[in-house]
Amino acid sequence: MNHSPLDGLVAATYTPLNDAAEINPDVIPAMVEHLLSQGVSGLYVCGSTGEGMSLTSDERRRVTQAYVQAVAGRVPVIVQVGHNSVREARMLAEHAAEIGAAAISATCPSYFPVRDAKTLAECMTEIAGGAPQLPFYYYHIPVLTGSAVDVAEFMKYGGDQISNLAGLKYTDSKLFEFQHCLEMESGRFDVVWGCDEMLLGALATGARAAIGSTYNIAAPLYRRLIDAFETGNLVEARRFQSQSIQMIRTLNHFPFHAAMKAVLTMRGLHVGGCRLPQARLDSNAMEKLKASLDAIGFFEWSQLEPLAK
Amino acid sequence: MNHSPLDGLVAATYTPLNDAAEINPDVIPAMVEHLLSQGVSGLYVCGSTGEGMSLTSDERRRVTQAYVQAVAGRVPVIVQVGHNSVREARMLAEHAAEIGAAAISATCPSYFPVRDAKTLAECMTEIAGGAPQLPFYYYHIPVLTGSAVDVAEFMKYGGDQISNLAGLKYTDSKLFEFQHCLEMESGRFDVVWGCDEMLLGALATGARAAIGSTYNIAAPLYRRLIDAFETGNLVEARRFQSQSIQMIRTLNHFPFHAAMKAVLTMRGLHVGGCRLPQARLDSNAMEKLKASLDAIGFFEWSQLEPLAK
Amino acid sequence: MNHSPLDGLVAATYTPLNDAAEINPDVIPAMVEHLLSQGVSGLYVCGSTGEGMSLTSDERRRVTQAYVQAVAGRVPVIVQVGHNSVREARMLAEHAAEIGAAAISATCPSYFPVRDAKTLAECMTEIAGGAPQLPFYYYHIPVLTGSAVDVAEFMKYGGDQISNLAGLKYTDSKLFEFQHCLEMESGRFDVVWGCDEMLLGALATGARAAIGSTYNIAAPLYRRLIDAFETGNLVEARRFQSQSIQMIRTLNHFPFHAAMKAVLTMRGLHVGGCRLPQARLDSNAMEKLKASLDAIGFFEWSQLEPLAK
Amino acid sequence: MNHSPLDGLVAATYTPLNDAAEINPDVIPAMVEHLLSQGVSGLYVCGSTGEGMSLTSDERRRVTQAYVQAVAGRVPVIVQVGHNSVREARMLAEHAAEIGAAAISATCPSYFPVRDAKTLAECMTEIAGGAPQLPFYYYHIPVLTGSAVDVAEFMKYGGDQISNLAGLKYTDSKLFEFQHCLEMESGRFDVVWGCDEMLLGALATGARAAIGSTYNIAAPLYRRLIDAFETGNLVEARRFQSQSIQMIRTLNHFPFHAAMKAVLTMRGLHVGGCRLPQARLDSNAMEKLKASLDAIGFFEWSQLEPLAK
Repeated sequence: MNHSPLDGLVAATYTPLNDAAEINPDVIPAMVEHLLSQGVSGLYVCGSTGEGMSLTSDERRRVTQAYVQAVAGRVPVIVQVGHNSVREARMLAEHAAEIGAAAISATCPSYFPVRDAKTLAECMTEIAGGAPQLPFYYYHIPVLTGSAVDVAEFMKYGGDQISNLAGLKYTDSKLFEFQHCLEMESGRFDVVWGCDEMLLGALATGARAAIGSTYNIAAPLYRRLIDAFETGNLVEARRFQSQSIQMIRTLNHFPFHAAMKAVLTMRGLHVGGCRLPQARLDSNAMEKLKASLDAIGFFEWSQLEPLAK
Repeated sequence: MNHSPLDGLVAATYTPLNDAAEINPDVIPAMVEHLLSQGVSGLYVCGSTGEGMSLTSDERRRVTQAYVQAVAGRVPVIVQVGHNSVREARMLAEHAAEIGAAAISATCPSYFPVRDAKTLAECMTEIAGGAPQLPFYYYHIPVLTGSAVDVAEFMKYGGDQISNLAGLKYTDSKLFEFQHCLEMESGRFDVVWGCDEMLLGALATGARAAIGSTYNIAAPLYRRLIDAFETGNLVEARRFQSQSIQMIRTLNHFPFHAAMKAVLTMRGLHVGGCRLPQARLDSNAMEKLKASLDAIGFFEWSQLEPLAK
Repeated sequence: MNHSPLDGLVAATYTPLNDAAEINPDVIPAMVEHLLSQGVSGLYVCGSTGEGMSLTSDERRRVTQAYVQAVAGRVPVIVQVGHNSVREARMLAEHAAEIGAAAISATCPSYFPVRDAKTLAECMTEIAGGAPQLPFYYYHIPVLTGSAVDVAEFMKYGGDQISNLAGLKYTDSKLFEFQHCLEMESGRFDVVWGCDEMLLGALATGARAAIGSTYNIAAPLYRRLIDAFETGNLVEARRFQSQSIQMIRTLNHFPFHAAMKAVLTMRGLHVGGCRLPQARLDSNAMEKLKASLDAIGFFEWSQLEPLAK
Repeated sequence: MNHSPLDGLVAATYTPLNDAAEINPDVIPAMVEHLLSQGVSGLYVCGSTGEGMSLTSDERRRVTQAYVQAVAGRVPVIVQVGHNSVREARMLAEHAAEIGAAAISATCPSYFPVRDAKTLAECMTEIAGGAPQLPFYYYHIPVLTGSAVDVAEFMKYGGDQISNLAGLKYTDSKLFEFQHCLEMESGRFDVVWGCDEMLLGALATGARAAIGSTYNIAAPLYRRLIDAFETGNLVEARRFQSQSIQMIRTLNHFPFHAAMKAVLTMRGLHVGGCRLPQARLDSNAMEKLKASLDAIGFFEWSQLEPLAK
């Protein structure tokens, strides 16, 4: 399969909800314009950030469609279709292909844990087969799926069995495993970094693209980080990574995704709160969050223009 | 809400699949007749045993309907509707009510882990609200959901918020937590035991009903266990529990649910193998399983007639 | 090896500490008299309850010696010698034998996790070899050691290799594993129950002896539980187990062992607080604990005389 | 406290054992000369690599003394004194100070898990107090201790309470936590990287020193990695890290530390196998290991001379 690898910052997008926690696709066009204006080079839809697993299959289809339409081909839209039911995941993959997604991605099932690379490859073969003409990315996120299989071993099986296996979204902190997957089979796979607060380390190791949630609210900061790294200015690059770490530590004092959505709301994008089982922020917590982010200068440095190269 | 508590042995039923791993509801009537003839007093459909989470929502509806129809009111059919999406779970609850299920049950979402009793109660409130006229049982199975919340604390919140909260299916080995839930609020809740290999301990502690997978293949053994216990013959009761333990240890040398389905197939009920991500048995493993079960006398003692009281 | 199996309630004793968290063996004779007067039939010294792992090897020797001397042969004293260093554990076993302990027991090392039954048997062979003339009990407590090996498989290896393997202290809630170990090889092993809040279930399953921490503060309650069970009065037996569960739930609102030691102090046994890394109770918490225990009637029912048989 | 921060590659040394698994300090002088000749800038003694927890306290003292004597002040010797007994750890710290160690380091107790930063600080205060004149490094290795506390929060408490707190040995893959600790309080702490297979990412993030086991067998490779990084040659640096990753993946097909010791033995340093509970390699496995390392070119590239800067 020929396809361009991802590059730059891919935002793992949020799913706008209204006060009744119903999906609110009307907000999606504004979200998309905001993200593109910030220099984001792709969208990852209905992932963990987008609460894909908390939506019904019908809602996932509607959210996906709204994102694909709003983007209108300007950047790739990758659709996350992982589901406890491999069959349902495959059907979501079929739908994403029909409506013009650029790529498919999926977690493994997690209710029944997947403990070995071979079974993982069988599951992904079935899902990827739903959209055989699109590049497929396995979404490795062991902290949520519990599947800590050797990813390189999976890629070996997967590379043999899955004709459209493009690579993976690697959401773990094991930089050595990431590097190994990036380099295996002469760099055959498009291995995308998924841990925003370690982007600098990943760049040093060879990362070309990153998918993450904080690119929704601070893409300019990360673009400056990348620019500083590429021009060999490690001192500056560390400083920007350090601001990202402070930001994430601050957000982690709150339910993380609810706090992220609150920041988007502060910016005029009314994405609402999170759906159960994730928590919502009340107005009190929202005020506290704002004050905490203000105290670290977030509202200034998260939006500064990129460095001139 | 007035409803009769469950009693005796409730089989957590299997979902018949064909060789292509498609659901095969045609086998369900024979399954039901077999189970009722063995003295099972209820069916628990689309639980972990029934691979509910591995089915599409549409398949869950079809399997549920087939079981409800085949049972035709002779024993209660409890429908498990747990899903990562609380909304999808609620919709499954609505459907189960429409087609005449006797009760609803649900695990908590698990992709996003539920870490406290209050959030768990909020999730269950939303799901149970889909079938407010039916008794609702929270399905506690921390080994699969990862949610090890204090169940008694959940029952307290749930008892206040969920008008149709009937009780719970308790699938863990903490007999003290089970006993506490059974006794709280003067025995208000119908707390059903879910760990077949510890049934004797649960009976001693006060259990009145049990839901489990091995009641599909050895209900007569467990009925003798219960009879022996009730007539004060602990020595015999231990012997029957001991046989159950041997049986389960033997099955556990294989992928458990695939092995269970193989035993049903040996009995003429063609339920097929398991769906991904669970493993299947090849014919070689099937032979080995048969020999192992033969070696412990399983095919004799699992089917013996109950003791005369 | 011929030895009498343990029976009845064996108290896992506390190690008295002074305000500087130094060991205070002077309190041990009073502790021993108190426990014997309550009907305890053995002492388990320097286990988890006794903070054995938090003591220096020298302190463990002194505490052991004080207990052996104070007991003076009236009941068996089992000495727990588990240590991350198998060599140090063996030396502690040698010492315990020299000073007249009745039996030895040991956890597996846990810093380097023990993941299989064979390695566990090798470790226990080395430790048990330090006191070959004494019965040896493997101390299974996976919640603290992290070693969730198949205990029956260990017993098989251990039974072959360890001439003085007497049995095990089983501190987990898996009643089926307990029962299986109890019955294997025609009941060859002395398998002692270690989960106080599930004693009734264990008795039903065949337990003859139990080792636990709450037998320090409520032995009469548990003796009544045993009496009720033995006379076939399950309703009463459940009531006593229920009180034990309430007591333990109350204690668990505090750092458990610090709270237990506080109860002993309320009874005039000045055992002090716990040593790091375990927490201590301040006087405020002590008051709150007292009130909470009072509210459930603990100070009455924990000390009542046994039922007349 | 004024002290020089560590820099470069600090080898976490092995403890030589003979065939009976007794310590064999006679091999230590040759080990030290070997390591110094390879460009190692410090030794970390009796850590996880050195099986400190598997030794008796007496053995730990003898091994420590042998290392300190053989080094004779040429590079700093840091002594790891962590123990389940905080008291025993403190006594080991006192001894290390007496015999001239350069610094002390300790894990937290792990049998009783340490779950919060405050308790961790209390434990470390007691241990560090045994050698108040020496710099103290907390040894964070959650995969073995199970203590996943927020390290930055610990450093804040520790910085207030422990006058000789110098920094930490950070053995986890969370580069963002490492970076945060490195930068907190204007870079007050000497935070040393502990995950060899991610050294490049750590250097990019600001690491100045690293402690690890593979510096025993491949220090020249890592020195070239550092040189390449420092001269801005990331392509080369990645290649060296890639070789380190291949080496570690190969070693991980065997019991890791036994395989590492086998490599040292192949180089003429007779350090023997590992002590229980860790596994040993038989001669068959040793041959297979040699062939596997040969196949990736390890015996050549692990020893090449550093790059000329």
